[in-house]
Amino acid sequence: MSEFDLIDKYFFQQVTQRKDVILGIGDDCALLSMPAKAQLAVSTDTLVSGVHFFADVDPRALGHKALAVNISDLAAMGATPAWVSLAITLPELNEAWLSEFAQGFLALAEYYGMQLVGGDTTKGPLSITVTVHGHVPQGKALTRHQAKAGDWIYVSGQPGEASLGLQLLQGLSASGLSANTQQHCINRLQQPTPRVVIGAALRGVASACIDISDGLAQDLGHILAASHCGADIHLEQLPLNADIVNAIAFEQACRLCLAGGDDYELLFTVPEEQRSQIEVIASNTGVPLTCIGRLVAGKPELTLKLDNQHYQLPLAGWDHFSDKK
Amino acid sequence: MSEFDLIDKYFFQQVTQRKDVILGIGDDCALLSMPAKAQLAVSTDTLVSGVHFFADVDPRALGHKALAVNISDLAAMGATPAWVSLAITLPELNEAWLSEFAQGFLALAEYYGMQLVGGDTTKGPLSITVTVHGHVPQGKALTRHQAKAGDWIYVSGQPGEASLGLQLLQGLSASGLSANTQQHCINRLQQPTPRVVIGAALRGVASACIDISDGLAQDLGHILAASHCGADIHLEQLPLNADIVNAIAFEQACRLCLAGGDDYELLFTVPEEQRSQIEVIASNTGVPLTCIGRLVAGKPELTLKLDNQHYQLPLAGWDHFSDKK
Repeated sequence: MSEFDLIDKYFFQQVTQRKDVILGIGDDCALLSMPAKAQLAVSTDTLVSGVHFFADVDPRALGHKALAVNISDLAAMGATPAWVSLAITLPELNEAWLSEFAQGFLALAEYYGMQLVGGDTTKGPLSITVTVHGHVPQGKALTRHQAKAGDWIYVSGQPGEASLGLQLLQGLSASGLSANTQQHCINRLQQPTPRVVIGAALRGVASACIDISDGLAQDLGHILAASHCGADIHLEQLPLNADIVNAIAFEQACRLCLAGGDDYELLFTVPEEQRSQIEVIASNTGVPLTCIGRLVAGKPELTLKLDNQHYQLPLAGWDHFSDKK
Repeated sequence: MSEFDLIDKYFFQQVTQRKDVILGIGDDCALLSMPAKAQLAVSTDTLVSGVHFFADVDPRALGHKALAVNISDLAAMGATPAWVSLAITLPELNEAWLSEFAQGFLALAEYYGMQLVGGDTTKGPLSITVTVHGHVPQGKALTRHQAKAGDWIYVSGQPGEASLGLQLLQGLSASGLSANTQQHCINRLQQPTPRVVIGAALRGVASACIDISDGLAQDLGHILAASHCGADIHLEQLPLNADIVNAIAFEQACRLCLAGGDDYELLFTVPEEQRSQIEVIASNTGVPLTCIGRLVAGKPELTLKLDNQHYQLPLAGWDHFSDKK
């Protein structure tokens, strides 16, 4: 079977055929038509075997995750997913593996009405690079640089679970954790849910937004740097999973939540006058949206507080080439 | 130095700042504005160390090539290059290497007025995935499926040189080749010139177009399959480099030209009534555009001819997962 047959067999036969795809897979380029008065949002992420996932990970879960982490970037801009390109490098032609991978990938694409419009299949060490394209109404994208001191800081879901899931897969003893919670954490790691509906609902409501793939504290740092302000985070307000707090102690649970990484939740800031909208969005989506602190004037620094007192908690985010890790 | 500092230091400081880039590097997504009445052309290609290039290749040449092979796909659609994303996976942080790579990459981006708008830097086995975006006026893209029997087949440049360059790097003895020709072939391999101006000029002139990265014969096969016709190619019309024919014999030079691969020339078909335009384009661009045969009615098969007689010449194109190689 050739490269071309491969692409045909597993990736060409997608159910979703968008009207704005003039040419999909099968020419030198995809040819795409943009809606009027929209801007194009584009993001690229690579997952490398042995770095971002274990070589023996379930290929269907990997297909899901490779797309989900990219859609999460669209969600963080408030963009609506549209098209995706997939570049996949494989050490050998394993059809069973590829079939499972494609099913995980395409199932998520279908869910969001995205069409796979191109890509490349190459031979080499296993890695996956996905480029997603979405639309956002002109001038309505959620960015990082328009937050202001006084805005409230919110986060979706329960960050830290994915990181705990990773530790469990690496052999962490977790005698205090129920089997259900353990599986939930592993699921959060392997099959994250991009917060597309929340991102779209936050257009015109949030003053800034980011997805916290690198860890809540580090990604909040990007908003602080871009918006030139500081932040107070109140540890007792963090949306911790009660089972986890019971099993591994409060301080460790806070550290997971703030620095764990690989969560694809949204962190966003909301001006006082828009706060009532957040309850509506949480209610509509069924996803907890929790206020964890507030932006303050001053240097782009994060201050952790417990009972309104400064609290010291060493944190480090995910950074491949940093000496800090 | 962290991943973020890296991106800043080598890739963020591009001279070209396009007005249609609302947000470039530094947010969850790039945010881009499309021109009116244009369609978006998108292509992705991966280069893997040890497969597409030698691990010790000059990083500046690699930076050039990684972008050039993608721009070539835009050229083949008749699209005008605009934006690019770069996902690069590196085994270690080698700043000297990265600086050279970035210079080669960005110099070509500048040449075409493209802006680097995003990407990802990860740790792992060396590989590079580039996604390019271009614009093409609505309905004017060059595709593969609209060629017709009777159309003439043209190719730009002198295909086969890149493939010979590869063989020279692999230690092919080439006593009959001048040092100049040897270096020229290696340059064609390592620093191909995407045919952007030719592609744009072919809008409204060519009936189909493709870039011949996989080898002339194999890529012509894609046009034949998509357009439901056959082709006659006349070997004596192939634009062979005279030095190469002298050194390695005519039949071998034909095989290099037809099946070599890694050429980023354009193969295109032209209706009889548009043929006069081709001379104008060749004259304006200074690139030879050579008529090598004609499309014929019938099965999507390629017939090779010499002095109007059938000629047998075993060929194989570049296909990573094919048993044929």
